Amino acid sequence: MEALDYHAEERRKAEFDVEEMKIVWAGSRQAYEISDRVARLVASDPVFRKDNRTMLSRKDLFKDTLRKAAHAWKRIIELRLSEEEASKLRFFVDQPVFTDLHWGMFIPAIKGQGNEEQQQKWLPMAYKMQIIGCYAQTELGHGSNVQGLETTATFDPETDEFVIHSPTLTSSKWWPGGLGKVSTHALIYARLITDGQDHGVHGFIVQLRSLDDHLPLPGITVGDIGMKFGSGAYNSMDNGVLRFDHVRILRDQMLMGVSQVTREGKFMQSDVPRQLVYGTMVYVRQKIVADASCALSRAVCIATRYSVVRRQFGSHNGGPETQVIDYKTQQSRLFPLLASAYAFRFVGEWLKWLYTDVTQRLQASDFSTLPEVHACTAGLKSVTTSATADAIEECRKLCGGHGYLSSSGLPELFAVYVPACTYEGDNVVLLLQVARFLMKTVSQLGSGKKPVGTIAYMGRSEHLLQCRCEVERAEDWLKPNVILEAFEARAARMSVTCAKNLNNFANQEEGFAQLATDLAEAAVAHVQLIIVSK
Amino acid sequence: MEALDYHAEERRKAEFDVEEMKIVWAGSRQAYEISDRVARLVASDPVFRKDNRTMLSRKDLFKDTLRKAAHAWKRIIELRLSEEEASKLRFFVDQPVFTDLHWGMFIPAIKGQGNEEQQQKWLPMAYKMQIIGCYAQTELGHGSNVQGLETTATFDPETDEFVIHSPTLTSSKWWPGGLGKVSTHALIYARLITDGQDHGVHGFIVQLRSLDDHLPLPGITVGDIGMKFGSGAYNSMDNGVLRFDHVRILRDQMLMGVSQVTREGKFMQSDVPRQLVYGTMVYVRQKIVADASCALSRAVCIATRYSVVRRQFGSHNGGPETQVIDYKTQQSRLFPLLASAYAFRFVGEWLKWLYTDVTQRLQASDFSTLPEVHACTAGLKSVTTSATADAIEECRKLCGGHGYLSSSGLPELFAVYVPACTYEGDNVVLLLQVARFLMKTVSQLGSGKKPVGTIAYMGRSEHLLQCRCEVERAEDWLKPNVILEAFEARAARMSVTCAKNLNNFANQEEGFAQLATDLAEAAVAHVQLIIVSK
Repeated sequence: MEALDYHAEERRKAEFDVEEMKIVWAGSRQAYEISDRVARLVASDPVFRKDNRTMLSRKDLFKDTLRKAAHAWKRIIELRLSEEEASKLRFFVDQPVFTDLHWGMFIPAIKGQGNEEQQQKWLPMAYKMQIIGCYAQTELGHGSNVQGLETTATFDPETDEFVIHSPTLTSSKWWPGGLGKVSTHALIYARLITDGQDHGVHGFIVQLRSLDDHLPLPGITVGDIGMKFGSGAYNSMDNGVLRFDHVRILRDQMLMGVSQVTREGKFMQSDVPRQLVYGTMVYVRQKIVADASCALSRAVCIATRYSVVRRQFGSHNGGPETQVIDYKTQQSRLFPLLASAYAFRFVGEWLKWLYTDVTQRLQASDFSTLPEVHACTAGLKSVTTSATADAIEECRKLCGGHGYLSSSGLPELFAVYVPACTYEGDNVVLLLQVARFLMKTVSQLGSGKKPVGTIAYMGRSEHLLQCRCEVERAEDWLKPNVILEAFEARAARMSVTCAKNLNNFANQEEGFAQLATDLAEAAVAHVQLIIVSK
Repeated sequence: MEALDYHAEERRKAEFDVEEMKIVWAGSRQAYEISDRVARLVASDPVFRKDNRTMLSRKDLFKDTLRKAAHAWKRIIELRLSEEEASKLRFFVDQPVFTDLHWGMFIPAIKGQGNEEQQQKWLPMAYKMQIIGCYAQTELGHGSNVQGLETTATFDPETDEFVIHSPTLTSSKWWPGGLGKVSTHALIYARLITDGQDHGVHGFIVQLRSLDDHLPLPGITVGDIGMKFGSGAYNSMDNGVLRFDHVRILRDQMLMGVSQVTREGKFMQSDVPRQLVYGTMVYVRQKIVADASCALSRAVCIATRYSVVRRQFGSHNGGPETQVIDYKTQQSRLFPLLASAYAFRFVGEWLKWLYTDVTQRLQASDFSTLPEVHACTAGLKSVTTSATADAIEECRKLCGGHGYLSSSGLPELFAVYVPACTYEGDNVVLLLQVARFLMKTVSQLGSGKKPVGTIAYMGRSEHLLQCRCEVERAEDWLKPNVILEAFEARAARMSVTCAKNLNNFANQEEGFAQLATDLAEAAVAHVQLIIVSK
């Protein structure tokens, strides 16, 4: 009771329209209403209970997850939920499960990389979940460096088959969600070899388990890779390991939308521009940034409510103690995270626009903005996920001892969130990709090629390298253009300095390796500017 | 095999005597030999296996923990292990358990705060574990502010008893390890009330559960507070909740070593100086700093070995890829943590000397160094535990996706370590205590009272406020005195600036609250100087 009053009192102090803000946050009134309705639906359904999740053994957690996935599927059909509503439902069920990969990776990959016949053959079975698929790219030895994958798919012209094989321990597929226990099929990436020649990494559909008794097929060794960070969290997912011992598949199980192998074993590439994949990439990264703002806002919400209710020290004459939120040490740690949650939300909304823009350009074969878009989305993925992971842990600390209890929600939120720093591109590797783009931009500054979009400020680098900050009093920082120019000047100066230092190296690659730390910092400065400017 | 070769190759490059370094790390050859022998003992005993720990349900984990605790006790007796060896054995068993609190808090508190008769009555039973005790101080509503505890112990002169009661929800005891399931007795802290007068917080021994059937006694409500961060980790401990409904205990169950209540209900305090408790505090904090260096070194060791074995990108002409440890981005994150592990180790060794020094002074009733020692140990506890918690997570990230697997050891190490930032003094609260000492030191600078020990540099503050760094080339930073003076100048300047800003406030407490963030930063600068100088 007492605690509720503290919250009401704080809420009364709000100087903005809270109802309006809910809608701004959701993106639209309709989005808000769907979200609100589906949240209540999930919260009131006992099958979706979350309170016991962290204390289940791995096996019981996995069973609980299967039960929830089946129930969600049932409710979606019963209530005839729209795609948007169904997606919200899965969001609020909030438990990683094999269907995430089946719907989110296996099916889209067949759509994107399969040819017409392949789509007609595989998609109907996948849509009805008569087969369950996972996406097996990463291996024990190779994650970031996809070109280094070792699994082989060797064409045998005598039988018109590919022989899929794991030649080394490090070539074992490692991590794919849904692989460990559930999937009947996998979309695997392997080195295509025809007539002794290596054509690089391509996608193949391989059946893993019998559709009769679910046992692994001959030549397939498959299993779960064990516990991951935290209790509950990602342990609901059967991330798996997979090895092939000369497994034969039909030739038409290679995804042939982009490249083909003919009956004679001839390798051919279609003239579809490879850049088309970037549309999907922008879409996925926009989703990751939106997820970051969601995870961060949950953590900040918990820490803020706790800071309002918790009182410690500072009682005068037997009165109540000071609310923890009134301590400057608490405010200086919490409030920037609150601001970041909104900033990530708004930059996520802007990325939706960017996705539309890129899609339209790609359809018109305009690839001009791709390098800038790639750098921008790679950087935003890296910076927002790293910041969110750190912020969740900071929010946990801001709840003192209570943040250590699973019942605070924060330990599991942290454990389930941190993989976002690794999947879809390791955050450090991505920053270095951004840095390469920055260095290229700087090197072309005098060439008449004008930087556009998020890198346009570099066109004013001469001014930014010399300008002095006009701030004289603290209040001057309230002017948005002052902040913006400060961020621009910082980003430009860091990039230009790196470019100068890079020129001291005879070998550019060697220079890039030696200056990697500075380059990564310059990339962060560039990305933070993007966030501030949106 | 391959991996082992990579390690051997790196080890061959060592430019120091590895055997010698092992002994330096352990503290002495004897300490090294004990540690090595006991480590092998634990590793070779199947009862102490750790590999399945993170996948057990809470209940099975708890049973596993009881089994290990009993087996450890058995082995210690069978092998007639010395106290040092027994302590090492518990360290390597590496699973929080109720006995930590029985031996580490319950028994020492009776020794320290009980009178002669009380020690004779309770300690023999405790030593034989005929009773099992926990230490119940923290409540749901009060952790840092011990003076705000709400549990009451009201003396009833008619029956010569205390009535122990939990008057509010927030007065529930919350967190004590060993309380939830195991303890038969608790040392509880409650407000002593005699004749309507509140004498503040004192310690009482209360029996919680029957020695016959282990059921809670009348008036006692007790239970486990549920899952904590991570799988495995601290979930092996039965941290508990405890409420009293007018529970009556004999008068002589109040610990009377320092304060007494007479048969007539008169409250009396003995003239034992309160400062004597500081000896114990220095001991406990020295232990925490030593633990920080252990936890950090484990994490750094895992991340370093991984970085040697892992290769990614950079293959030339089909040769092996680049070892991750050769990337500057990896080095710039990993190597400072490696250096910190050694720094914390050495400052921990210095704290052992400090403990001896303080003990000798206290015995001679010399309390002069206590404020400086208190600030120094509080600060070191705060800075080393915060840095270690962050560093373990950084090491986990440095292992890429593999760091997310429980089998890397890092998720559980993080989850079991982070409470160190909260227990024995919240790290932010401690920094503000350090800051108070710094402000007092600055204010007394002109008074002729010379700062001593770790704060002696403040006596040269006039020089430190004006001196300029002599560094001209990067190599100049290799001179220890240059680094030391830089740290001194930074710490002195931050403290003096805070003190000046504090003077702008009419109300010093208001100023302290407003400037808390700067003050905490000044405290960190002071503590980092201590670490650098030892």
